[in-house]
Amino acid sequence: MFEQEIRIKGQKARKASRLLAGVSASLKDSALLLMADSLVRETEKIIEANGIDVQRGIDKGLSKALVDRLLLNPQRIQDMAQGLKEVAALPDPVGEVDSMWQRPNGIQIGKIRVPMGVIGIIYEARPNVTVDAAGLCLKSGNAVLLRGSSEAINSNKIISKIIADAAFKAGLPRDIIQLVESTDREAVNVMLKANGIIDVLIPRGGAGLIRAVVENATVPVIETGVGNCHVYVDELADLKMAEDIVINSKCHRPGVCNAMETLLIHSSLADSFLPVVLDRLKGLGVELRGDERVKKYVGWVKDATEEDWYTEYLDMILAVKLVDSMDEAIEHIYTYGTKHSESIVTKDYSRAMRFLKEIDSSAVYVNASTRFTDGHQFGFGAEIGISTQKLHARGPMGLKELTTYKYIIYGNGQIRS
Amino acid sequence: MFEQEIRIKGQKARKASRLLAGVSASLKDSALLLMADSLVRETEKIIEANGIDVQRGIDKGLSKALVDRLLLNPQRIQDMAQGLKEVAALPDPVGEVDSMWQRPNGIQIGKIRVPMGVIGIIYEARPNVTVDAAGLCLKSGNAVLLRGSSEAINSNKIISKIIADAAFKAGLPRDIIQLVESTDREAVNVMLKANGIIDVLIPRGGAGLIRAVVENATVPVIETGVGNCHVYVDELADLKMAEDIVINSKCHRPGVCNAMETLLIHSSLADSFLPVVLDRLKGLGVELRGDERVKKYVGWVKDATEEDWYTEYLDMILAVKLVDSMDEAIEHIYTYGTKHSESIVTKDYSRAMRFLKEIDSSAVYVNASTRFTDGHQFGFGAEIGISTQKLHARGPMGLKELTTYKYIIYGNGQIRS
Repeated sequence: MFEQEIRIKGQKARKASRLLAGVSASLKDSALLLMADSLVRETEKIIEANGIDVQRGIDKGLSKALVDRLLLNPQRIQDMAQGLKEVAALPDPVGEVDSMWQRPNGIQIGKIRVPMGVIGIIYEARPNVTVDAAGLCLKSGNAVLLRGSSEAINSNKIISKIIADAAFKAGLPRDIIQLVESTDREAVNVMLKANGIIDVLIPRGGAGLIRAVVENATVPVIETGVGNCHVYVDELADLKMAEDIVINSKCHRPGVCNAMETLLIHSSLADSFLPVVLDRLKGLGVELRGDERVKKYVGWVKDATEEDWYTEYLDMILAVKLVDSMDEAIEHIYTYGTKHSESIVTKDYSRAMRFLKEIDSSAVYVNASTRFTDGHQFGFGAEIGISTQKLHARGPMGLKELTTYKYIIYGNGQIRS
Repeated sequence: MFEQEIRIKGQKARKASRLLAGVSASLKDSALLLMADSLVRETEKIIEANGIDVQRGIDKGLSKALVDRLLLNPQRIQDMAQGLKEVAALPDPVGEVDSMWQRPNGIQIGKIRVPMGVIGIIYEARPNVTVDAAGLCLKSGNAVLLRGSSEAINSNKIISKIIADAAFKAGLPRDIIQLVESTDREAVNVMLKANGIIDVLIPRGGAGLIRAVVENATVPVIETGVGNCHVYVDELADLKMAEDIVINSKCHRPGVCNAMETLLIHSSLADSFLPVVLDRLKGLGVELRGDERVKKYVGWVKDATEEDWYTEYLDMILAVKLVDSMDEAIEHIYTYGTKHSESIVTKDYSRAMRFLKEIDSSAVYVNASTRFTDGHQFGFGAEIGISTQKLHARGPMGLKELTTYKYIIYGNGQIRS
């Protein structure tokens, strides 16, 4: 049954995507604005449907945090609508010719940005992803096949209906936004193998979901997610700056992927900077786990095990290690990191340059907080996720990363000899 | 055993790739030139090893075509060496900063091109792929894990040893070129799941190999290959030009992926252009398969079945269909095509523009042969394959497509508020 649902909705999305690819930016933008208005106008209906999901979540014993993720209120609906308006205001990446050149035989070759076609999004509890993902896919000219979690099914159904109706009313093809309503887990597996229907899959959620998608999909996947981020405080750091960057990278929002998880400090700072910054972190409620050398200088920290260096806590916990050189810091990051975001704090020019060159992460910082790895902070205006793979897109992905290109060739009778 | 081989060689390649990423273009280029010289100098040794493969191929009853693919002679070795020299002469894509911008808080963000890391190449009979792939990966700063077919194992062993030794002698890390010597088919499966060791896999070979890789890999894959290419001769075509383009697209080299497989002709040309061009194709030895309408005008063509519209013949066979409109041509291409290369022949401006816009293929032509879809013809100087997927790279892939990017961020103490 779900197989049929995905095949039918996928084909509808496919057909609609061909029309959508040729639609003007102004039509797409007016559709996004109408979608935003409709969401706000239908606030009551959305809250009613969401109430069913929330009650079922409570009855099922979902954690308070998960129930909160599920919950919609007028403010959150306003925020979703606001997000659509911001996407409408962004430039359209489709149709941009990145470059054009002429070959000796006279053919002219242009590289033009075009939509992917149909994007599949597989996500977890938050119903706002339904709106975010649909808006970004629409603006980049893609039809979308959405598969949220069963916990949010009633919210997702009403939200996707409201925005799809609004897009249609604005003049876009009927079927560009499709919600998979089957809550059977097998439905996800059908999406993973839907080559020829779905052009690219983007999983958004916890490590388990992402692993399952990467391991089982035959459709190309953009892996998002895990960030075991590091800050390295160099011997030659501005210590006041280092303190601020460490605190910000850890405490500003510890539950997200660009938060620092391990702090590396040059051993020459072991009896000056180390105790000061750890005290301050402790005062802010951070649990600290250090290796033996750290414990020698700051007795009260907990023991860090090998496991800690690998862990993305997503919590007010921090692993701390003393290193004797920048080489050791780079080796540690290479061995335990996830190639997401790393920062060095230093006043030394050549060390800064070396860190930028040798660290193989999606975002490498000098003297700034790791928390900036984010589509909005980078100036992309929007973000569909942060890629942790090297193929296609790396780091924050905005509208452009939801497109591909094709070559257009202008000839006047050229043949190959 | 092969599991261990791949893990050990993969880790060696991984380690070497970190050093290679920072190597200057001039050192990489001198290594490529030394590799070229060494191949020529060791011609005798290569031919001797290749002789064993060829004899075994003959004994096993390989087809004449396959034995020819396997065969190396002094000219072919010269050609491989020449290929390396051409790669050395190309610009290095690594280190190029595509763009750099400043955010309101003063951080400066740059997008810099970097190597992928370790590229896995899985390929079939031709031993020249060993040299081609290793050269392109080296120039783009990547270590490579090569897995050729068992038929060419002796040739591949000696060739990879010669070029790896030469690269080392030139001053590059020892382990950047690794050949998987295990001929067990299971070794390929280990590569497909080697996440964390291999960054991207590129299969090069027949449809069966590519399907097996796409369906079973958890490492990101770039799919290459199948080209069911079309030429559409519009009502308003220059008929002399159309004839040349049709002949060239079909006959210039029918065994490759950018050759035309189906010819679509506007029905208004049914009793003028159609019989003329089919006669000429027949005279050149092309077997023609037409639908019922074509047979009405040219009685001697064979029947085309539904199957024919889907088929990539890679041979002197062509399917022919009459269509009543450009819409019908576009629909046909959409339904049966593989999104590789399609060409329209027309004198009409708006039809040319519409074809360029609506055809969703990696290369879309106006008034030129489909045979130009090729890295060299596009001016990339080299080609690792032609991507038929939309993620990462589309169409001919040169050196740039073997790289990825990272963001480098220059701050002076910025934190997120």
